[in-house]
Amino acid sequence: MSDKKLKMGMIGGGPGSFIGAVHRISAAMDGLIELAAGAFSSNPEKSQQTGRELFLPAGRVYASYDEMFEKEKQLPEDERIDFVAIVTPNHVHFDPAVKALKSGFHVVLDKPMTFTYEEAKELAKTIEETGLLFCLTHTYTGYPMVKEAKHLIKSGVLGKIRKIYVEYPQGWLWTDLENTDYKQAKWRTDPKQSGIANCMGDIGTHAFNLAEYISGLKTTKLCADLNIVVNGRTLDDDGAVLLKYDNGASGVLMASQIATGSENNIKIRVFGEKAGLEWEQDNANTLIVRHPEAPAQIYRTGGNIPYLSPAAMENLRTPGGHPEGYLEAFANLYRNFARTLYAKRKGEVPKPEWLDFPGAEDGLRGMAFVEHVVKSAKSEQKWTTFEL
Amino acid sequence: MSDKKLKMGMIGGGPGSFIGAVHRISAAMDGLIELAAGAFSSNPEKSQQTGRELFLPAGRVYASYDEMFEKEKQLPEDERIDFVAIVTPNHVHFDPAVKALKSGFHVVLDKPMTFTYEEAKELAKTIEETGLLFCLTHTYTGYPMVKEAKHLIKSGVLGKIRKIYVEYPQGWLWTDLENTDYKQAKWRTDPKQSGIANCMGDIGTHAFNLAEYISGLKTTKLCADLNIVVNGRTLDDDGAVLLKYDNGASGVLMASQIATGSENNIKIRVFGEKAGLEWEQDNANTLIVRHPEAPAQIYRTGGNIPYLSPAAMENLRTPGGHPEGYLEAFANLYRNFARTLYAKRKGEVPKPEWLDFPGAEDGLRGMAFVEHVVKSAKSEQKWTTFEL
Amino acid sequence: MSDKKLKMGMIGGGPGSFIGAVHRISAAMDGLIELAAGAFSSNPEKSQQTGRELFLPAGRVYASYDEMFEKEKQLPEDERIDFVAIVTPNHVHFDPAVKALKSGFHVVLDKPMTFTYEEAKELAKTIEETGLLFCLTHTYTGYPMVKEAKHLIKSGVLGKIRKIYVEYPQGWLWTDLENTDYKQAKWRTDPKQSGIANCMGDIGTHAFNLAEYISGLKTTKLCADLNIVVNGRTLDDDGAVLLKYDNGASGVLMASQIATGSENNIKIRVFGEKAGLEWEQDNANTLIVRHPEAPAQIYRTGGNIPYLSPAAMENLRTPGGHPEGYLEAFANLYRNFARTLYAKRKGEVPKPEWLDFPGAEDGLRGMAFVEHVVKSAKSEQKWTTFEL
Amino acid sequence: MSDKKLKMGMIGGGPGSFIGAVHRISAAMDGLIELAAGAFSSNPEKSQQTGRELFLPAGRVYASYDEMFEKEKQLPEDERIDFVAIVTPNHVHFDPAVKALKSGFHVVLDKPMTFTYEEAKELAKTIEETGLLFCLTHTYTGYPMVKEAKHLIKSGVLGKIRKIYVEYPQGWLWTDLENTDYKQAKWRTDPKQSGIANCMGDIGTHAFNLAEYISGLKTTKLCADLNIVVNGRTLDDDGAVLLKYDNGASGVLMASQIATGSENNIKIRVFGEKAGLEWEQDNANTLIVRHPEAPAQIYRTGGNIPYLSPAAMENLRTPGGHPEGYLEAFANLYRNFARTLYAKRKGEVPKPEWLDFPGAEDGLRGMAFVEHVVKSAKSEQKWTTFEL
Repeated sequence: MSDKKLKMGMIGGGPGSFIGAVHRISAAMDGLIELAAGAFSSNPEKSQQTGRELFLPAGRVYASYDEMFEKEKQLPEDERIDFVAIVTPNHVHFDPAVKALKSGFHVVLDKPMTFTYEEAKELAKTIEETGLLFCLTHTYTGYPMVKEAKHLIKSGVLGKIRKIYVEYPQGWLWTDLENTDYKQAKWRTDPKQSGIANCMGDIGTHAFNLAEYISGLKTTKLCADLNIVVNGRTLDDDGAVLLKYDNGASGVLMASQIATGSENNIKIRVFGEKAGLEWEQDNANTLIVRHPEAPAQIYRTGGNIPYLSPAAMENLRTPGGHPEGYLEAFANLYRNFARTLYAKRKGEVPKPEWLDFPGAEDGLRGMAFVEHVVKSAKSEQKWTTFEL
Repeated sequence: MSDKKLKMGMIGGGPGSFIGAVHRISAAMDGLIELAAGAFSSNPEKSQQTGRELFLPAGRVYASYDEMFEKEKQLPEDERIDFVAIVTPNHVHFDPAVKALKSGFHVVLDKPMTFTYEEAKELAKTIEETGLLFCLTHTYTGYPMVKEAKHLIKSGVLGKIRKIYVEYPQGWLWTDLENTDYKQAKWRTDPKQSGIANCMGDIGTHAFNLAEYISGLKTTKLCADLNIVVNGRTLDDDGAVLLKYDNGASGVLMASQIATGSENNIKIRVFGEKAGLEWEQDNANTLIVRHPEAPAQIYRTGGNIPYLSPAAMENLRTPGGHPEGYLEAFANLYRNFARTLYAKRKGEVPKPEWLDFPGAEDGLRGMAFVEHVVKSAKSEQKWTTFEL
Repeated sequence: MSDKKLKMGMIGGGPGSFIGAVHRISAAMDGLIELAAGAFSSNPEKSQQTGRELFLPAGRVYASYDEMFEKEKQLPEDERIDFVAIVTPNHVHFDPAVKALKSGFHVVLDKPMTFTYEEAKELAKTIEETGLLFCLTHTYTGYPMVKEAKHLIKSGVLGKIRKIYVEYPQGWLWTDLENTDYKQAKWRTDPKQSGIANCMGDIGTHAFNLAEYISGLKTTKLCADLNIVVNGRTLDDDGAVLLKYDNGASGVLMASQIATGSENNIKIRVFGEKAGLEWEQDNANTLIVRHPEAPAQIYRTGGNIPYLSPAAMENLRTPGGHPEGYLEAFANLYRNFARTLYAKRKGEVPKPEWLDFPGAEDGLRGMAFVEHVVKSAKSEQKWTTFEL
Repeated sequence: MSDKKLKMGMIGGGPGSFIGAVHRISAAMDGLIELAAGAFSSNPEKSQQTGRELFLPAGRVYASYDEMFEKEKQLPEDERIDFVAIVTPNHVHFDPAVKALKSGFHVVLDKPMTFTYEEAKELAKTIEETGLLFCLTHTYTGYPMVKEAKHLIKSGVLGKIRKIYVEYPQGWLWTDLENTDYKQAKWRTDPKQSGIANCMGDIGTHAFNLAEYISGLKTTKLCADLNIVVNGRTLDDDGAVLLKYDNGASGVLMASQIATGSENNIKIRVFGEKAGLEWEQDNANTLIVRHPEAPAQIYRTGGNIPYLSPAAMENLRTPGGHPEGYLEAFANLYRNFARTLYAKRKGEVPKPEWLDFPGAEDGLRGMAFVEHVVKSAKSEQKWTTFEL
């Protein structure tokens, strides 16, 4: 490890933000990162207010991300921020991300990658050109049991994959919350801030990413049914997608914001020719592996659990039965990002497990998913070919 | 109640049959029905062997159902069978059912109704013409908590229905069992005995029926993806269907026989504008009702549970926490059928709850489902209109 | 198998009885036993009424069990009852059981065995002297996964047993139901019908029996805390017992009727030096086996499940995932009893699995448990030695 | 809030420590506290090594806590530590805690409070005399659903409490790990570091505390059975305790380290005259409330859940369904401690919810529990009166 914490500058995350606090907690948890600067709101007053609440010196709180990049660049190397965390609504992802990279700052970006697929391609290009680190916070791939699932499949425990069910049922948009002052609902249902999709962009992409991540498969075509259930909306609040993968497997993806009474229980089931597995956020520390002719097995998270893969072990903190949750999964993204960054700085080779955080390709594929799903939903043809 | 048990004659259910034993247990359980005769196999020897094992006098065991109808008709009214239970593979449903009805016997028939949709229509006509009772054993609608779910939706607790997820993941055909001497696998994967679909006919129809039964909605169009996963098969062993319902709601139906390690956990989730609910066979005595702004509720089966509807109460036997299962659900179909029959004989009006067993319309719709799903799976068009 | 069903005469089980119906369903389910006679109530009118509802000829319905024994003995051997099922409150167990045996009838008796421990000893002596079959309906030992648990422990999978937790929390007597017309509550809380204990006799004995049955251990001493929680009662409605077993293991038994909102989730956990296991009625078809250094395993009931022991396989009826419940567990006692009786009659050796139903020793130990628990509860000494 | 983070000095938590990392993560998570100094090991080399790994300047890493108190006192007020976190084995709790307080530093102390009950009394006195803040990390009381449970009981939802079951089954000491180099096992089983009890001190106290915390009741007498199961140990590795509470309720407490295959699923069930409730760490974000005549309710953690009490709402960070776990529960203790400290400094009145962290009385009662349990275990008398 280096001799100092990494310094983070945050873009977005001012009053009323949910995900900003999640990023800050996750970054702080493991003692590797300190919040050093911020442009928390496009309203300078609000930005300063948030800075004060976070104990930041006023001089490191900025009225805009442009200002932040400008000023921070001029600080001595050991004082200035090392990377930015961008936690704004979707339409304010591309610009700060590209500018940060061009200013020499590594980037952690909330998903989806950008507002449009075109932007995503350009951002990916910038990442490649600058050679800087880029992490896209597809939270669910940070869970230790998701890592274990990926490991088991890669190791051949399930045999060739045949079927994937992935679902993300939420109920919070069961009514027109966007007509109250609920900020989270407002921007997600607004095409100007959210993009061409709401439900599929916000949570469908998570499900899509999780399925490809765990299975190691790539989507080749899809057939989507998108719905606008609550009156007055212009973007989807519900949908289902039939999928085909590059090894011939098929899949079903379900995402909804009107599954009344549902919370955030993203769940995946993968079935192979030798075994099946099942994971869901509500039992995040448990992974069920099902065998055709032997008792199912309950894999569990825990630093003291001898059978876990390094992939899982590098992404947990507590012994079995002391549950880790969403914030720890999120923190795993930050910790792996930070460990990789430290290693690179010290000229060391990062452990392969540290390199396992979502990046540009995940982001591109996610944006492509949104594009294709919307296209398919409008089409009378059954299958739409999926291609980058 | 009448002064004698109802007399049942069974068609099929000889050596190697699974569902024959299920029907016999279910019919016997409540003391309303006695097995009085049988044509258990097309092999007379085997038919007699099964008859002996079931303590039937040799004279009431027949070499064919034709013989059974012939001979039983000639017995004195208080001795001869009242109804037949038909538990043969799909291609031997239509003929015995029609003949039984025409011989004056009521019919309990295992699902799916017939081999083809055309047969189903003709059988439905015969049922109507004869005015006899007809019960199609869509088992899952016999569960008390399924009845309660239907009741809650009908009562408006969920509000207008918006979304249905229904799934039936099995894993037992994960490998080519049909090439062993496993009779159950053999006939189901054989187009000559099973019809135009395997997975969708065997369990997809259950899921389809359950969704329409609980929600009270009717399917208007669908989009199907059917798969043959295990090499050498000619019928589907996996599939998923996107659905539209007559009130504008949408649905997703998933059925598989290659969901490795899965058993028979048929599960349904229904979401309305006011609440959602969730039931699955693995927790058959529990019904979860989810509210957007109040704690979810756990409804439970049990004769001593004061909040249950008559629909549930008429379909259970034990106090809460003494679990009832698949056989009791199946027995509920028989008990309601028997209670209705008793009532009719005595010129009494059956309770509405007794009349609630699946019949000709369920059968017809199920066969139409199979037809439409197969048609859709072959089509390049996204949506196929569902019509009887 | 013999060429006729076994004939059962029932004692008790008239109007308002819960357990009478359970016995009848369980006896009927597998087609081996028919209800042929009954003395259902000490009120002759009510006895006849119940007989009519059960389709019994009036001549086989008796005003008293004495009359039943008298008359049935005089019937031709192939017409008269083979055994009696006694389903009366506790104070009417001993007399009919002894008389039945002395009249040459085998006996199925609801638990607990008798009203007092002294009676139990005398009944045990009569059973031994007559050499007739005796089955005491400790239901929970009839569950396939309880059989599997016993098998795994016997096979050494858990190693030497170290600790047992067994619990039976009910909530139904949370208020003074006995002051309503609830018959079940009335007799259980009445020392004249129930004996020296209520909660411990009714459900504590089940827990005690289950622990000894699964573990194969025998209790050597105990320390009990009995409570009367609801005002006005004279017998315990709650209690807990610390236990020591003959191999040095210790245990905790908890039973309550005032665990408000609880149903009947009897649960046992056994821990050995190599593994632990866990079973509960609410998930009756599941047995969890926990290993110190490997994933826990989920054993499941099902006729198609290849890893199950004969002990489990002989006690089930359906494939995995089609749940069997309380009535099937109960029916397993009857089926094993019947299979053993058939075998004996035909001079064949019953399978060891058929002989596995609770009998005189279970009954005796259960009554001794009640005696010792009540004695211990009154004692200021910590430990009370358990001896027959 | 104040304008700076609180500064923490840690005592213990060097190489091989589990709980040290837990404290650091928990303190860091919410951005209110920074680790500013440490005496991480009695070995100065190791202390410095840990300091470096935590990015501390060498000058703030001390060879002993004495040195830390000495030096830190001399630092300017806005630079020196505000409080210490003591995370050493039990025999090194008392001395640093008392010295810290006498040096003017607030204290967060891992449980149990001290090595002996006498020390606990003296420490309590010192706390009172100095008027400084003291937090004892009984983690489980930090869970939002534990807070909600306490709130529901206090609000009368359960009515008068009648029965408590609390259990903490672990399996990690199923074999003699203390004879390997497993530091956690070594000190806990060593009377010189652990005190007069191992299992009851380590986890029995948590269960004891949780029961009294949630119910608001106080223990009046108890009857304990302690066991040494693994050969060679001198302290208990298993035990059970019967309890009586000051309102007449009774309880059962079970704690074990040899419940093979068990992790850390501390669980509590409380039954009152109107309802019951149930919480367990394995489903930490769920609280089940059971009603005698209405469906059970599933309360859930979540910042967006409208029915939760302020007690729960002040102790969570994420929306429903994004699980929070052990570290967040732990962090709640730190956050409440910190919020209280900030408030006091600013002369403001802390919210009542912030004041709800375990303190001296919890510590005293916990040590008294250990004393009484050990005394009772040795006694032949059933009941031992519990008194401070």
